[in-house]
Amino acid sequence: MQDCIVIGSGTAGVSAALTLQANGKNFILLGQTGLSEKIAKAEKIRNYPGLLDVTGKAFCEALQAQLKAASIVVKEERAMGVYALKDKFGVATQEGGYYESRTVILACGVESVKTIEGETEFVGRGVSYCATCDGFLYKGKTVAVLCTSKRLEHEIEFLADFAAKVYLIPMYKEVEIERENIQIIRKMPVKLEGKMRVEKLVFAAPISADIGSELEIDGLFALRESVSPATLVGGLETLDGHVKVSRDMQTNIVGCYAAGDCTGRPYQYAKAVGEGNVAAHSASAFISERKKQETKD
Amino acid sequence: MQDCIVIGSGTAGVSAALTLQANGKNFILLGQTGLSEKIAKAEKIRNYPGLLDVTGKAFCEALQAQLKAASIVVKEERAMGVYALKDKFGVATQEGGYYESRTVILACGVESVKTIEGETEFVGRGVSYCATCDGFLYKGKTVAVLCTSKRLEHEIEFLADFAAKVYLIPMYKEVEIERENIQIIRKMPVKLEGKMRVEKLVFAAPISADIGSELEIDGLFALRESVSPATLVGGLETLDGHVKVSRDMQTNIVGCYAAGDCTGRPYQYAKAVGEGNVAAHSASAFISERKKQETKD
Repeated sequence: MQDCIVIGSGTAGVSAALTLQANGKNFILLGQTGLSEKIAKAEKIRNYPGLLDVTGKAFCEALQAQLKAASIVVKEERAMGVYALKDKFGVATQEGGYYESRTVILACGVESVKTIEGETEFVGRGVSYCATCDGFLYKGKTVAVLCTSKRLEHEIEFLADFAAKVYLIPMYKEVEIERENIQIIRKMPVKLEGKMRVEKLVFAAPISADIGSELEIDGLFALRESVSPATLVGGLETLDGHVKVSRDMQTNIVGCYAAGDCTGRPYQYAKAVGEGNVAAHSASAFISERKKQETKD
Repeated sequence: MQDCIVIGSGTAGVSAALTLQANGKNFILLGQTGLSEKIAKAEKIRNYPGLLDVTGKAFCEALQAQLKAASIVVKEERAMGVYALKDKFGVATQEGGYYESRTVILACGVESVKTIEGETEFVGRGVSYCATCDGFLYKGKTVAVLCTSKRLEHEIEFLADFAAKVYLIPMYKEVEIERENIQIIRKMPVKLEGKMRVEKLVFAAPISADIGSELEIDGLFALRESVSPATLVGGLETLDGHVKVSRDMQTNIVGCYAAGDCTGRPYQYAKAVGEGNVAAHSASAFISERKKQETKD
């Protein structure tokens, strides 16, 4: 069993990992080796103490070098569910992994992508967040895919193997995927409509002369870099879309901590770094107590 | 009137200053151009994201370069009192300065030096924290001086001009001060004794064969790098010796924020940097509101 699972490899997650390592804890850092597209794309960071006018790319590389020097490897998996079991946590990933730990640190950031109208209502009735989980349900059918990152294109390919037709709505520039049954739509939909299940994806204006402003679909896959914390962890208390934490970064779930943008504004590197550090210290103290308890039991 | 006065030039204070500057606020940063002896003396910092195994000295220099690039000048003065006036703050310094501001950020760190037994009870009755304020009261008398830093030696010289005899108990290595009436004692006292006023400084063991284990004194000056936040700001709420703050770094006094070691453990650079950033953002929001109010009034 791990001491901790850190979910997210942005600034907060990296800070937590470095401190857990310094504290001699064993842990898994779930994320991406590129760490964070948000950081990498930042033009210039002006107020991060110690690094003068650093570019996001240079900051990202510095963090990568630091992880490497500390022998910390990012596990390229995305958490899909966090389960609070008796005295431990279970974390399942979209890649099929399952890990157990004494504590969890949520450092999953905030999605800048808003959900579209009707999305939440139709979850499980045509709306899915995981192609590899639910793709087979759409064999021979028509689906739309909202996708936030090129990194997730393999999921679209997986879908295209089953579905007869895939409307891909990419939220990034260079689409690399090419399949006969994939049609790229460069407009954002405004809402989902349907009775029992999803039936239509509605746009504000006609997509093109031959298509019009509606797509008839059997399902919508919203593929985003991260699942929202509340969706990830059942019973997690949130406030205005952010994870509610105490000064020591504890959530309402014992042993579950949060850090960085997911806990609220300001969305700043310095704040994320500080919170990751504090969360790791709090988790470390909790782990020590839990281990004493385990020895007694 | 300033938008903000940042008290302390350690990591938290520098982080707050950089963010206030980025937010276009005018402010005074009270501290020292060397920023912080604690940082400068740190051997190696292992878990500060973005700087791989940096020495305290290198970190300090990086912060100095960053302040310079942002045209932020540290005002070499030590805050002695913070007064919450109507709709503004007054800050008095030991150097005789007096400044007004809409907000205050306390980033004064924690003193690792403990008070000695009897010290607090005898404040104003023989115990003083400011040589330039109270030195003249000891003309022709005998005083002891507890001093934490060579930087404060000018205060001891000031005292030696008045007092007949000065027992200097330095808490640093190289003492540069030399005066006929100054005697250096390399032992720490354990308590102060006296009736109405301070009479004796008591040591655990004899200082030397001719002196014994007690010094008869008329006054004790405790010269420390920083005054404790609770002494600095009347009515400030503390908990276990730390300033009590909310998640957005607000203290119990409206417009007064705190950040860094003074708010509690972990005493880590990452935490200090994060809290300084958040305090600056909270103060900035408060300043905007206050300015709207001022325009109305």
